[in-house]
Amino acid sequence: ERLDERLRTDAYADLDASANGLQVGPGGPAEADPDIDHAAFAVDAAVETAERAADAQSDVLCVHHGLFWGEFERATGPTYDRLAPFFENDLALYVSHLPLDGHPEIGNAAGLAETLGLEDREAFGTLGGEHIGLRGRSPDEFAPDELRDRLATECDPEQGVKHLDFGPERIENVAIATGSAADWLDEAVAAGADAFVTGEGKQAVYHEAREAGIHVYLAGHYATETFGVRSLLSLAEEWGVETTFVDCPTGL
Amino acid sequence: ERLDERLRTDAYADLDASANGLQVGPGGPAEADPDIDHAAFAVDAAVETAERAADAQSDVLCVHHGLFWGEFERATGPTYDRLAPFFENDLALYVSHLPLDGHPEIGNAAGLAETLGLEDREAFGTLGGEHIGLRGRSPDEFAPDELRDRLATECDPEQGVKHLDFGPERIENVAIATGSAADWLDEAVAAGADAFVTGEGKQAVYHEAREAGIHVYLAGHYATETFGVRSLLSLAEEWGVETTFVDCPTGL
Amino acid sequence: ERLDERLRTDAYADLDASANGLQVGPGGPAEADPDIDHAAFAVDAAVETAERAADAQSDVLCVHHGLFWGEFERATGPTYDRLAPFFENDLALYVSHLPLDGHPEIGNAAGLAETLGLEDREAFGTLGGEHIGLRGRSPDEFAPDELRDRLATECDPEQGVKHLDFGPERIENVAIATGSAADWLDEAVAAGADAFVTGEGKQAVYHEAREAGIHVYLAGHYATETFGVRSLLSLAEEWGVETTFVDCPTGL
Amino acid sequence: ERLDERLRTDAYADLDASANGLQVGPGGPAEADPDIDHAAFAVDAAVETAERAADAQSDVLCVHHGLFWGEFERATGPTYDRLAPFFENDLALYVSHLPLDGHPEIGNAAGLAETLGLEDREAFGTLGGEHIGLRGRSPDEFAPDELRDRLATECDPEQGVKHLDFGPERIENVAIATGSAADWLDEAVAAGADAFVTGEGKQAVYHEAREAGIHVYLAGHYATETFGVRSLLSLAEEWGVETTFVDCPTGL
Amino acid sequence: ERLDERLRTDAYADLDASANGLQVGPGGPAEADPDIDHAAFAVDAAVETAERAADAQSDVLCVHHGLFWGEFERATGPTYDRLAPFFENDLALYVSHLPLDGHPEIGNAAGLAETLGLEDREAFGTLGGEHIGLRGRSPDEFAPDELRDRLATECDPEQGVKHLDFGPERIENVAIATGSAADWLDEAVAAGADAFVTGEGKQAVYHEAREAGIHVYLAGHYATETFGVRSLLSLAEEWGVETTFVDCPTGL
Amino acid sequence: ERLDERLRTDAYADLDASANGLQVGPGGPAEADPDIDHAAFAVDAAVETAERAADAQSDVLCVHHGLFWGEFERATGPTYDRLAPFFENDLALYVSHLPLDGHPEIGNAAGLAETLGLEDREAFGTLGGEHIGLRGRSPDEFAPDELRDRLATECDPEQGVKHLDFGPERIENVAIATGSAADWLDEAVAAGADAFVTGEGKQAVYHEAREAGIHVYLAGHYATETFGVRSLLSLAEEWGVETTFVDCPTGL
Repeated sequence: ERLDERLRTDAYADLDASANGLQVGPGGPAEADPDIDHAAFAVDAAVETAERAADAQSDVLCVHHGLFWGEFERATGPTYDRLAPFFENDLALYVSHLPLDGHPEIGNAAGLAETLGLEDREAFGTLGGEHIGLRGRSPDEFAPDELRDRLATECDPEQGVKHLDFGPERIENVAIATGSAADWLDEAVAAGADAFVTGEGKQAVYHEAREAGIHVYLAGHYATETFGVRSLLSLAEEWGVETTFVDCPTGL
Repeated sequence: ERLDERLRTDAYADLDASANGLQVGPGGPAEADPDIDHAAFAVDAAVETAERAADAQSDVLCVHHGLFWGEFERATGPTYDRLAPFFENDLALYVSHLPLDGHPEIGNAAGLAETLGLEDREAFGTLGGEHIGLRGRSPDEFAPDELRDRLATECDPEQGVKHLDFGPERIENVAIATGSAADWLDEAVAAGADAFVTGEGKQAVYHEAREAGIHVYLAGHYATETFGVRSLLSLAEEWGVETTFVDCPTGL
Repeated sequence: ERLDERLRTDAYADLDASANGLQVGPGGPAEADPDIDHAAFAVDAAVETAERAADAQSDVLCVHHGLFWGEFERATGPTYDRLAPFFENDLALYVSHLPLDGHPEIGNAAGLAETLGLEDREAFGTLGGEHIGLRGRSPDEFAPDELRDRLATECDPEQGVKHLDFGPERIENVAIATGSAADWLDEAVAAGADAFVTGEGKQAVYHEAREAGIHVYLAGHYATETFGVRSLLSLAEEWGVETTFVDCPTGL
Repeated sequence: ERLDERLRTDAYADLDASANGLQVGPGGPAEADPDIDHAAFAVDAAVETAERAADAQSDVLCVHHGLFWGEFERATGPTYDRLAPFFENDLALYVSHLPLDGHPEIGNAAGLAETLGLEDREAFGTLGGEHIGLRGRSPDEFAPDELRDRLATECDPEQGVKHLDFGPERIENVAIATGSAADWLDEAVAAGADAFVTGEGKQAVYHEAREAGIHVYLAGHYATETFGVRSLLSLAEEWGVETTFVDCPTGL
Repeated sequence: ERLDERLRTDAYADLDASANGLQVGPGGPAEADPDIDHAAFAVDAAVETAERAADAQSDVLCVHHGLFWGEFERATGPTYDRLAPFFENDLALYVSHLPLDGHPEIGNAAGLAETLGLEDREAFGTLGGEHIGLRGRSPDEFAPDELRDRLATECDPEQGVKHLDFGPERIENVAIATGSAADWLDEAVAAGADAFVTGEGKQAVYHEAREAGIHVYLAGHYATETFGVRSLLSLAEEWGVETTFVDCPTGL
Repeated sequence: ERLDERLRTDAYADLDASANGLQVGPGGPAEADPDIDHAAFAVDAAVETAERAADAQSDVLCVHHGLFWGEFERATGPTYDRLAPFFENDLALYVSHLPLDGHPEIGNAAGLAETLGLEDREAFGTLGGEHIGLRGRSPDEFAPDELRDRLATECDPEQGVKHLDFGPERIENVAIATGSAADWLDEAVAAGADAFVTGEGKQAVYHEAREAGIHVYLAGHYATETFGVRSLLSLAEEWGVETTFVDCPTGL
């Protein structure tokens, strides 16, 4: 129906890059599927999320992390196991990876920036000619501990947030790149950020942050990337599609 | 059961290269599937051959040309359509491409050399460090037309064989590389062959053959590549597996 | 003289790409040769066509398939043999490969489209940013057998045309890419063509055409590529150059 | 002196690969420095560790993570800042990265395997033709929680260990690859491990472990990689060199 | 101070390419260093030139040939020795290689063209989309020997100039590419130059020049590349910076 | 005849690498040409040397620098002009480049080492797994000026030899790599040579030699590479082939 076509063409078209769009399904990657009644949304495509989407009678599972990364040349072993629930339940798989990281309104970083109340937002996290994050200014500066607690509340109250406490006492400029984006620390420093928020860290970040004098907050890969798929879910609901959010936190 | 394990480990293990082995199925590519009762054999993996194999209650379809050539990153459109009959019918796909071309006993060129009665066979058609064909000597030399007719009878009586008649009047040494192997004409010339037999030609072969003074016989891509899968079928029957040959000639 | 310069600069300049233009001759590849009295035209550059051009007192042989494909680092063996008649007879070699495939008026596909009476022609067969074929609409739809017979008459009445008869009963939209262009079948399907005409096929085309529901006509690599060089010949005659067509069909 | 030469030639020579060995210093990368009186050891080369090594009057700082990863073409900005304390204090930098991960006796995984009491150790974690980890069998099987607590005690009692609890109830076979080695989870599964121990995880590990049914323990990148440099320190002490361990935990 | 910022941003910004700009120093490559009182200028960065610049109390050494060509992954051996005088004397290194070759006003070729009185200058010596030389017309044609003597006087009166005397008797059009630019001889021929001036030759130039009928003058790599750094020195003096020219001729 | 076959198989076979062997001629690159009566020898293949070889009634021109370096895809312009004298005079071209540099007895460096009376010769100048030069010990040490004069006498009395006088007062160990081999200066230093002899220099050699404390002698590219072709000429004479040496010094 018309709303479903809009789901594809109007909202997603501008998101499409590399391996994004339809990953499993009878149509071509850019084709509109005319009969979506129920759409499920999850961060990761996996056996568990596919089965829970099928249990909810979904026609399509929309995710941030898809099944196919780079080339593959067999459908055997784990690849077979992950494809099977899609074929067996007539379930399509729709993926939006980097486009959903960087989208200025419904992206992951955008959702997190919104909850932190950042203003004067600009694109951040260059990758090729595109961006995968956002940065902005907090009208009321954060104290370092205050920002850590805010992030913990919004992202993962249970696990909390890891804080590398090497920056200034008042935090005005915040750069955000969700997921595993520690490689963009340098860009955050160059952009004059007081704090850099991402999901997963990596060992080398510690001394880089210390020597550059910047706060780093690691708020969880899964936790920081629920914002985008939840925005897609809201959009689908506005179009009259039934929706299910398949929450399957990894604690990572 | 034991016989099926032999099908994998004893016969196929030495064939395995590049994208060969299990291409679709729950196990890993080198794993023995313990319950094969019925195996189908075809030259090409396609919707039609998969459905005919499923109709025959096969557990596995063994082919020369598989579904996956190089990288792919989506299971959509034609790829989805070709994968679906395998997932929906619990049908595995087993592939042996170049290993089955070059195998000195059960390979495509070997089967064709056998029907032509060639002796003193040697490996031919180097690709990397391996070979994809065979060459041999005919104890009774062929007249050029006689070899053309023999090939037509063995390969494709209906379509016949295309003959580039630029070689000597008596043919003793014959080089064979089945399928689309026109690029090995140079190697046939360098090896002193009087005739080169392959499946499909290509335009440039005409003047190359004419200038080198060699016979070229184009006996059909499909027709020259039924020899290998038929040999595999016989092997499976010896092990007590039920078999079906899915004949689906392309005329190419 | 002036007409010869026009032969280079006016007509060929827009055709020039990759390895095209002058391949053998004392001038640079883009230089006008001021004294062409007699030009020969053939599909392939080879010993036979070079010698027949020299016998006709030609100053230049214009072909679709030249001598040099990619790198070479010696002038020995077959390369020496093919170069020798050019050096010994002061015969230049002028080549137009892909430019002559895709030219919308004097190209190979254009000539074939003209004989079929196709209208509303558009570029087809993308390669890089260029095209190597044409597609168009037949004002009077063809029956599948009718199109096969028309192609046989125009291209190669002796060998006929191979027809993969998997498309609709009436053919309106026809996509053409001459020579060995089976890889563009997908693009023909995506463009909504009812029939795809090319020169040589390859084995994989059979199931692709069957599953996509499209007619494929294989009308001969040599036969479909005489149209372009004949158009060049006519152009040269208009400019007052004496011409010879060296017809050397390969049957492929 | 003689002992220092042994430090280079006897102990390190077999470790040397890619960018390992001397990274900063007046000699060539394989040259023995004849006058090392005091050697400092740290996990990471950074401004802080270099300055603490210089404060301890060290002649050389030996680390697991060096300054140079891949190409660089300027000594400016952070690179300048990190090089400066070495040049200003006549401090050399000696690096052993992957060789120290995979060394069967003094490597990082070897040290961790030793503390866990694993037996029948074999090389694990293939990279090129080399290995970066170890696997072994526990004579007394671990309960899943027991292994988590043992790792926390040995590695990082403060931060604890993240446990993805998807494996069997008794753990006999343990595969270890320290640092950021989540990509070797597949190899651990293929080797039949009940548990895989590494330093840092990454988001995709969660579903991979869940679908494969294996325990994953993330014991800290820094924490799991102190074992190797401590072994080097002991070796240097045996040779009579004064030593300092520069402990600078990153919490990552 | 302001003048120094202009030194960076106004004059050098348009020169910056590949490995140019600041190569050694605490700031980033594009950063303005606010306190340059004394700048030294030399053709080559080397131990000798660095030490002579430090003796002159310079804050920065500006050169045409820097220390870093392509990747390096250690600061040991000769690399250590060349970096040491910069770190030990707080001396920065600023490099302008190809940008200084091709700059139409302050570049090496521009300086040489000026001394020869060439008019109607155009860019010459294409490399990527840029140029590394200049060509122009002499209002009073040179006799071949006259041009050789002029070049010897301007460049290196002691060593003289090597002359491959294969061109016409009067020289009007002169193409210049300083340093080791013999590979651009073809472009000089194609541009209709009567003479090609460069620094170093190479063996193959002899027959290429002879067969093309062009004069080649080899005026010294060092000698032809002092023009650019001297222009930079003048520019710096205009801005009020103290300067030193470190002349260290190589005779090559 | 038999001697000619020995010219190919016995003497040249072990020399053959990359683009060496027959470069122009009707046979294949490894084929013995059965009728060589007269062979000419020169350093460079060029129009002039080919014409002088043809004037001497040669069947083959044997050179160190051939016509083909890397890929080419046209025989036009200068390439046409250089090929023409070979085709028009039935003159073959035989090339031995790096093999003739590195051959321990008849190579360029070997010939030069012989004239200098070096003993204990070893391979020098690694390139891939092969060598392109030699090094040895002088039983009577040279004074630096003495070696310069000896080289001038042997190589090019007219032009003399350029000497970078940065090494010790007595020269015992000498490394030789003829032609343009300045990139092997580092290897000469690492091998403990007191002096490095090559043909052409390049600008960067000056400071490298100065900082390493080694003598560098630039004795001419052409001059240092006449030794090998003269050795081949002697060999051919021993086999009874008439010979001509085409001396065409470039002064480079």
